Amino acid sequence: MSSLPVFFFVFSILLSQFPTNSIASDFCIADLSQPDGPAGYPCKDPSKVTVDDFVYSGLAVPSGNTTNFYNSAIRSINIEQFPGLNGMKISMLRADLDVSGVTPFHAHRVAELLLGVEGSVVAGFIDSNNTAYYKTLNKGEVLIIPPALLHFFYNVDSTPAVTYSFYPSDEHHVQIIDFALFQSNLPSEMLDKVTPLDHAEVQKLKKLLGGTNL
Amino acid sequence: MSSLPVFFFVFSILLSQFPTNSIASDFCIADLSQPDGPAGYPCKDPSKVTVDDFVYSGLAVPSGNTTNFYNSAIRSINIEQFPGLNGMKISMLRADLDVSGVTPFHAHRVAELLLGVEGSVVAGFIDSNNTAYYKTLNKGEVLIIPPALLHFFYNVDSTPAVTYSFYPSDEHHVQIIDFALFQSNLPSEMLDKVTPLDHAEVQKLKKLLGGTNL
Amino acid sequence: MSSLPVFFFVFSILLSQFPTNSIASDFCIADLSQPDGPAGYPCKDPSKVTVDDFVYSGLAVPSGNTTNFYNSAIRSINIEQFPGLNGMKISMLRADLDVSGVTPFHAHRVAELLLGVEGSVVAGFIDSNNTAYYKTLNKGEVLIIPPALLHFFYNVDSTPAVTYSFYPSDEHHVQIIDFALFQSNLPSEMLDKVTPLDHAEVQKLKKLLGGTNL
Amino acid sequence: MSSLPVFFFVFSILLSQFPTNSIASDFCIADLSQPDGPAGYPCKDPSKVTVDDFVYSGLAVPSGNTTNFYNSAIRSINIEQFPGLNGMKISMLRADLDVSGVTPFHAHRVAELLLGVEGSVVAGFIDSNNTAYYKTLNKGEVLIIPPALLHFFYNVDSTPAVTYSFYPSDEHHVQIIDFALFQSNLPSEMLDKVTPLDHAEVQKLKKLLGGTNL
Amino acid sequence: MSSLPVFFFVFSILLSQFPTNSIASDFCIADLSQPDGPAGYPCKDPSKVTVDDFVYSGLAVPSGNTTNFYNSAIRSINIEQFPGLNGMKISMLRADLDVSGVTPFHAHRVAELLLGVEGSVVAGFIDSNNTAYYKTLNKGEVLIIPPALLHFFYNVDSTPAVTYSFYPSDEHHVQIIDFALFQSNLPSEMLDKVTPLDHAEVQKLKKLLGGTNL
Amino acid sequence: MSSLPVFFFVFSILLSQFPTNSIASDFCIADLSQPDGPAGYPCKDPSKVTVDDFVYSGLAVPSGNTTNFYNSAIRSINIEQFPGLNGMKISMLRADLDVSGVTPFHAHRVAELLLGVEGSVVAGFIDSNNTAYYKTLNKGEVLIIPPALLHFFYNVDSTPAVTYSFYPSDEHHVQIIDFALFQSNLPSEMLDKVTPLDHAEVQKLKKLLGGTNL
Repeated sequence: MSSLPVFFFVFSILLSQFPTNSIASDFCIADLSQPDGPAGYPCKDPSKVTVDDFVYSGLAVPSGNTTNFYNSAIRSINIEQFPGLNGMKISMLRADLDVSGVTPFHAHRVAELLLGVEGSVVAGFIDSNNTAYYKTLNKGEVLIIPPALLHFFYNVDSTPAVTYSFYPSDEHHVQIIDFALFQSNLPSEMLDKVTPLDHAEVQKLKKLLGGTNL
Repeated sequence: MSSLPVFFFVFSILLSQFPTNSIASDFCIADLSQPDGPAGYPCKDPSKVTVDDFVYSGLAVPSGNTTNFYNSAIRSINIEQFPGLNGMKISMLRADLDVSGVTPFHAHRVAELLLGVEGSVVAGFIDSNNTAYYKTLNKGEVLIIPPALLHFFYNVDSTPAVTYSFYPSDEHHVQIIDFALFQSNLPSEMLDKVTPLDHAEVQKLKKLLGGTNL
Repeated sequence: MSSLPVFFFVFSILLSQFPTNSIASDFCIADLSQPDGPAGYPCKDPSKVTVDDFVYSGLAVPSGNTTNFYNSAIRSINIEQFPGLNGMKISMLRADLDVSGVTPFHAHRVAELLLGVEGSVVAGFIDSNNTAYYKTLNKGEVLIIPPALLHFFYNVDSTPAVTYSFYPSDEHHVQIIDFALFQSNLPSEMLDKVTPLDHAEVQKLKKLLGGTNL
Repeated sequence: MSSLPVFFFVFSILLSQFPTNSIASDFCIADLSQPDGPAGYPCKDPSKVTVDDFVYSGLAVPSGNTTNFYNSAIRSINIEQFPGLNGMKISMLRADLDVSGVTPFHAHRVAELLLGVEGSVVAGFIDSNNTAYYKTLNKGEVLIIPPALLHFFYNVDSTPAVTYSFYPSDEHHVQIIDFALFQSNLPSEMLDKVTPLDHAEVQKLKKLLGGTNL
Repeated sequence: MSSLPVFFFVFSILLSQFPTNSIASDFCIADLSQPDGPAGYPCKDPSKVTVDDFVYSGLAVPSGNTTNFYNSAIRSINIEQFPGLNGMKISMLRADLDVSGVTPFHAHRVAELLLGVEGSVVAGFIDSNNTAYYKTLNKGEVLIIPPALLHFFYNVDSTPAVTYSFYPSDEHHVQIIDFALFQSNLPSEMLDKVTPLDHAEVQKLKKLLGGTNL
Repeated sequence: MSSLPVFFFVFSILLSQFPTNSIASDFCIADLSQPDGPAGYPCKDPSKVTVDDFVYSGLAVPSGNTTNFYNSAIRSINIEQFPGLNGMKISMLRADLDVSGVTPFHAHRVAELLLGVEGSVVAGFIDSNNTAYYKTLNKGEVLIIPPALLHFFYNVDSTPAVTYSFYPSDEHHVQIIDFALFQSNLPSEMLDKVTPLDHAEVQKLKKLLGGTNL
């Protein structure tokens, strides 16, 4: 093509053909100061958005103190931790497992892509026909875990392990069953009824994990 | 596993790994004081949510006075009636049909699972090739009705009938054609044009059902 | 309107304007003889579809023998049990709870609308912040349970109880944790690692519930 | 950049990084010889796809003979008429209205964008609160009609009118209520029951429109 | 049916069965004064909605001044231009191409149905296997373009051409690569790196199209 | 709870309540021997599924030979490469960038979460208002890139760099514009028309990148 002199027309005319607020439709950084809704949070004013709204560095640092019963820690990264995920339908989690560390049984509504980052873990899940699937996962290997199935992983090496998880939703909802059952306020007499555990075992686990309404 | 004394660590550390507002992502009780949007209503403050926000008792009581032209009544239960449905993608309806009661032709954008609760009804729908499907539905039987197809049901027994309907959407949009056509403000001369009915019939039905712009 | 004689034109012309296979797009009864896919099963030949493909009577009968450890039974109704649900985004379940019957902790990827049908149950769920929500549910009352959260219910009356559940998906995936953990083939040494239970308790539960790889 | 000689590397290496069947994931032309499913039809072999699979010319020609009771005709264009729409979540319809032509009340599960192409029509819809919305639509003007609401349009000019409709689904399911009720096989005695019309009117309309089971 | 006198009951009872705010669920006209979210804008007060909220006339007029480098202009119509599209999952665009006019390479996340309205254009797209598909599109013909693939069209006739495009989303996000690359603020040294163009060519195009950070 | 002897009942009864083919609904490993459809591939026989169907090791190894014009290589991992992703709504990509390596401008229909794995890259994207966002991304840092926007990254360190990308779709459709334009079969005379490049530049780039129809 040719005709350079007319580029002023292009500039003024073409821009005028795009609504000044159309930038809002490319992305929607969460404004956490407003209440969210079923689809996420209202958008931050696009004119105040910078590249930093799209970057998150928290996966790079350990997710927490692993001096605990499980010798492990996790950091769940949803919209509330990384507002740039709002409406992007993806989120993540970092798990740190010290030697003999364990991430106990947990589940969430969406699928999970589990990535080995450091060390080696045995990772597994159980399907709704009660069949278990498990394998050792090394650095750079991934395991796809179907939605809502109980899964776990634990360090099988003599060095700490790190895993990253990725979810096709901007909010994943990790429920850890040890805590749901024994760190919650569900009365012991109910737990006696709805689990196969006897009263003594229920009491022991509630004391261990910090549950209330013993 | 073992080592009880460390459970204080577990308690403090694990909780600290979950954002205090993460509860918002498990559910979103509608705050009806705010305007809704295409995906539903903004969420009520999670710290104010109780189990009662998840319970609805209105299906248990008759849906209304059946002393009317159809000897029937319905109660449509969407987010506005049961805020706990917000974002849950399910809603419901109760219909009460007195002896000889009828729920006239209606449709809505999503599928319907119609459950017989009391008595017996003949329930049917018509597909877009103008083929009718109908059958007597007794207590505990269900009929699945595809999205947006006209359907109806009427009591065929000598006792009152009750049905419950369930929809895979937190807002269903029941449009009853008798009312859409003859209880609305659509001018009679338009109805004359766009229905196969003559003017006298249109006038008669508008008077019967309470339409305006005769 | 008027002009009766031309109705032959209408008949022939209008029909000719709709593809003879358009009926396929109103519904898609599952052809279970073919493999399914992520969105469901291929459609049965529409010309062979009758009203019976849209009706299911199995909710009306007890879901199974309740003479078991839980004094309860459930029947899960997905596409495989009711092919008419294919693509309709809704499915259901019936639970029968004898006196003192229990439906133990379970979860699934989609929300659940739990309906009291007979008797009274205490129904509850635990959110991902480990807060428990529970209430007595009587006939005609519903509880909405958010996706993927552990929930339970048990009979609190002196008569048998029946509940129906409805799900906004044509496949729900009930995973009962007692069976996932202790009726599965997951080796005991793994369960020792990833649950807070000691070896003796794990063995006891596996024996009780029929697990393998003790 | 520079270094021309290496372009052979680029060519061979880069291509080898894309699976030869990856083309299948850009589009999925319907193979109508196979049964469809809830999400559409299986894909035609990508190696046999040409640009003609993406082009449809049928909107350009009249949709049918308008010498009928409604002085109008429509052509509904779904996957079955245009296999390139498979999985593309959009479809269309052409309506031809002769002078005094009418497209009678109809509905479908998805929204409709109605475009005036020739002449002028009055187009309207009725919401589920029985409020009517209608306006004259001229060439190049559009009316957005919400999902599943009854709508209609008719020619108000002294020349033929043409409209195109666009739907955010690759299958729209037009149900015309005149035909659903009076061209179907639904027995007259049922229509007597579930419509506000008396027997004589039902018989008259069934005869007019070609219904069976009088 | 019969019994006219009771129609007052019908009127009062039936209306009372529909929540006064249920109208909000049939449609959700965007309230542009509030921030949008991932699913669109909050709804305008339904009591203030009129038929004009559902009508848009801007497609009928030229989309802009075509005296520019491309001899063309486009008008993109999203929620911000037509608030009635909010939540309706459909939007549109008008392109005007003067003689020898071009709509340069662009893409967007959703599919496009391109309709020839006036004149003739050559329209084409390139798939992710780098295969080009193109054809002359005349009045009334449509081309379906898969999501996110680069496409273009240009006038091949001796008269101006007009096209309309329809998208299965209430926000489409047209990105024109000439402007993204050469009208943006991306520094020239970066463009030198990430395009196969040399520095002189990059500078020339930035000057032509009005880019900054030369 | 108690009563061990009855566990045989549990075992036989509970299992009999779950359809033997219900396992198909937890996951759907792609059967690549069958044609896919808009929602993915038909499911592999569940009885033949092993844990290896859920594991992929290809991210751990270099994605290809980086001795090329871009000093880089990528490996795109969709269902065709990892059948376990079928229906899981997530997929991934590995990029290897040698010193001074570049991943040129590309786009795809879904969002991308770009993770720094080794070394340091400058990563950026341009929105549909032609505003550029870019930043240096180090090991463990992530950048979220909105759907369908042009983006790029290049090595800014003196050591090789590796990145992983994750997408909320089981098929992402990377289109690299250099190849779409200059490695395709689109005739040069068309490229002259629809790009701002002159004929000589088009010819040069087609020769460089291996395009046909010069």
